[in-house]
Amino acid sequence: MDILVKPEANELRKAMQRPVVEQANLEATIKDVFDAVREYGDEALVLLGKKFDQCPALKQKVSCMGYGSQLSPELKSAISKASSNIREFHAAQQSSKAVVETMPGVECWRESVGIEKVGIYIPGGSAPLFSTVLMLAIPADIAGCKEVVVCTPPNAEGGLNPAIAYALEVSGLSEVNLVGGAQAIAAMTLGTESISAVNKLFGPGNQYVTYAKQYAQKYGVAIDMPAGPSEVLVIADELANPEFIAADLLSQAEHGEDSQVILLTDSQELAKKVKEVTYTQLEDLLRKEIAREALKFARIIVLDSLNECVQVSNQYAPEHLIINTSNADDLLAGIVNAGSVFVGPYSPESVGDYASGTNHTLPTNGYARAYSGVNLASFQKQITFQKLSKKGIQNIGRIVEVMAENEGLDAHKNAVTVRLNTLK
Amino acid sequence: MDILVKPEANELRKAMQRPVVEQANLEATIKDVFDAVREYGDEALVLLGKKFDQCPALKQKVSCMGYGSQLSPELKSAISKASSNIREFHAAQQSSKAVVETMPGVECWRESVGIEKVGIYIPGGSAPLFSTVLMLAIPADIAGCKEVVVCTPPNAEGGLNPAIAYALEVSGLSEVNLVGGAQAIAAMTLGTESISAVNKLFGPGNQYVTYAKQYAQKYGVAIDMPAGPSEVLVIADELANPEFIAADLLSQAEHGEDSQVILLTDSQELAKKVKEVTYTQLEDLLRKEIAREALKFARIIVLDSLNECVQVSNQYAPEHLIINTSNADDLLAGIVNAGSVFVGPYSPESVGDYASGTNHTLPTNGYARAYSGVNLASFQKQITFQKLSKKGIQNIGRIVEVMAENEGLDAHKNAVTVRLNTLK
Repeated sequence: MDILVKPEANELRKAMQRPVVEQANLEATIKDVFDAVREYGDEALVLLGKKFDQCPALKQKVSCMGYGSQLSPELKSAISKASSNIREFHAAQQSSKAVVETMPGVECWRESVGIEKVGIYIPGGSAPLFSTVLMLAIPADIAGCKEVVVCTPPNAEGGLNPAIAYALEVSGLSEVNLVGGAQAIAAMTLGTESISAVNKLFGPGNQYVTYAKQYAQKYGVAIDMPAGPSEVLVIADELANPEFIAADLLSQAEHGEDSQVILLTDSQELAKKVKEVTYTQLEDLLRKEIAREALKFARIIVLDSLNECVQVSNQYAPEHLIINTSNADDLLAGIVNAGSVFVGPYSPESVGDYASGTNHTLPTNGYARAYSGVNLASFQKQITFQKLSKKGIQNIGRIVEVMAENEGLDAHKNAVTVRLNTLK
Repeated sequence: MDILVKPEANELRKAMQRPVVEQANLEATIKDVFDAVREYGDEALVLLGKKFDQCPALKQKVSCMGYGSQLSPELKSAISKASSNIREFHAAQQSSKAVVETMPGVECWRESVGIEKVGIYIPGGSAPLFSTVLMLAIPADIAGCKEVVVCTPPNAEGGLNPAIAYALEVSGLSEVNLVGGAQAIAAMTLGTESISAVNKLFGPGNQYVTYAKQYAQKYGVAIDMPAGPSEVLVIADELANPEFIAADLLSQAEHGEDSQVILLTDSQELAKKVKEVTYTQLEDLLRKEIAREALKFARIIVLDSLNECVQVSNQYAPEHLIINTSNADDLLAGIVNAGSVFVGPYSPESVGDYASGTNHTLPTNGYARAYSGVNLASFQKQITFQKLSKKGIQNIGRIVEVMAENEGLDAHKNAVTVRLNTLK
């Protein structure tokens, strides 16, 4: 974890560069999986499960109902409350239909319609990411998606993790497919006897899952967003509590060895303290070996002012941005590129990862320059409508005729002319 | 143009299948263009322009101001009025900030921020698509994009088409790059001495441009949506005017030989009449050879009921859907997959192509199942924010701790714990 003090422009640019993620070329592997699933359907899923899952699923499609009693009351309550916050924040994103009469008799409007079939992938592995269930299944429910297909690998006993099951249940779902890896993505893309082909795929995963989602787009399936390593950028001033900042940096670092961890500050004093405290806190963490690896590439950069910190952050476009300064509110207007922003000393990234209500599926790798995080609209399409009365076509008709004629498209013009002729 | 009467399920499915668009493998060609532009910048643009443009541009970057006097007063007025309708409809899509307090002291909200740098490609060729300028540059202006880079090929005299220039001017732009083809996409992706690298690319184009946009995504640039041949599906009943329907089908057919043109109706009588009238109208069209080719693959399908027409349309997910029935309003609730819908007898697709106010950049090739057409949000990101007070972290803290602990992420938990500890 290097401290850079007031670096030159070139040095700063270099320090803020993300490492190029060498994407393994998995084309051949993923193509084989897709081909197998297309040809053999569920049978392929069973065979691939036996090959790749830690413990093959005893049964592929299982109910997720009634697992609540296997959780501690405290976890059950936490999932319920987080669920209710996430539901409230995403429900507030529902847009209402507004008819705009652009000319007398020319009415235009949009309707939000849930994407009919969506697929959600929940990774298994070391940690059961039940929070991701809430972040994807709840907006899908609010959006009115008619079918929500969920795939997750079987746990170490070939069954369903109870916390994932409970999160699915509180999100309004009743069953899940114990299918993991690229074959899950292939199944939701192509369809099998038991799994519906979907229109859009959501959810994180390892490099195979990520590549499979890219590959799925060749079949016309949409995906939530391109994936990269997780990131946090903290902007802090001399009054910030170093313990808070160290804990925030480590909460990102524990995600993976490739996690991106950056602190920008106008205080050299704070920079030193944070570095110290970070290594002290590190020693007590369960995942300290992962975090230690990530910290090797972490950067603390001291800049001239907080405004410069904001500018550098905008250039970087972090997935998570924590603004831990006494004037946090004043800095917000300057933020143009970030996935989710955590304002003030009492807003750690963790609250947004789990429970505040905002979504934790966010653009990494600089994609925040052009992409939003997952939100209600990610599960919907906006269909536009227009309805013209006789008066409407009479008002707008000549405009369309003239434009079509000048673009050399006289059939376009004629579609108006034949109508105007009947109204003469 | 075949008429299918009440086909069997299999026959219907086959009739509603889109032809598989064989995408030429342009990887090597496009890679060469990108490599040249990266290495030689503007110099490469000049060389490639000399090679590919009908007439090389006399100057690359030109002003688009002051061309209005070269247009007929009627065209000028039509562009201005269309522009004002498009502006009104897209401005109404601006979302206002709403703070949701999901728990006492936990405030969450979203802000719409314009994507900083967007690139717009306007094709040249036989028709100067000034309408596409309005559809892309106006929402970019409303969205607050800081830099809007426009590229369009030089016209037959190596200059700027006056109608394109005027459309740019009324959209709030002052200059444009006379650069066409894949090299324009490469320039807006990688940046050159005179053209800024952008965050998101918009606009239609030939197969080279389309492939180049896909290729650009490897560099982290977002694109508006995947592209395919244009489509219209008309649903009509026995009371519909066959002249209107024929003109609507032809206005799609004239776009290109691969245009998809479909009529669904519950009236065999109407089906026959429309076929007749279509071939009659065809003879008078400027682009009749193109339209005739597209009509070879056009389908008229007679179904049992209008509700069945709606279901079949939803399966197909047309880019443009015209509902020309006496009960058009009643059918709307059933529409789940379509790009833009034209309601009732006096709403031809042409009005949306040019002037009603809705956007004409729409999802083709079945993408309407998961994608919206271009809209204001296409030029913005939604950044989420959360701000917790001391009370807020005290209310939500334990929920986050419990969830993080159960996902095995104790550094996430600790980011909350260190804060709660200071508040005890």
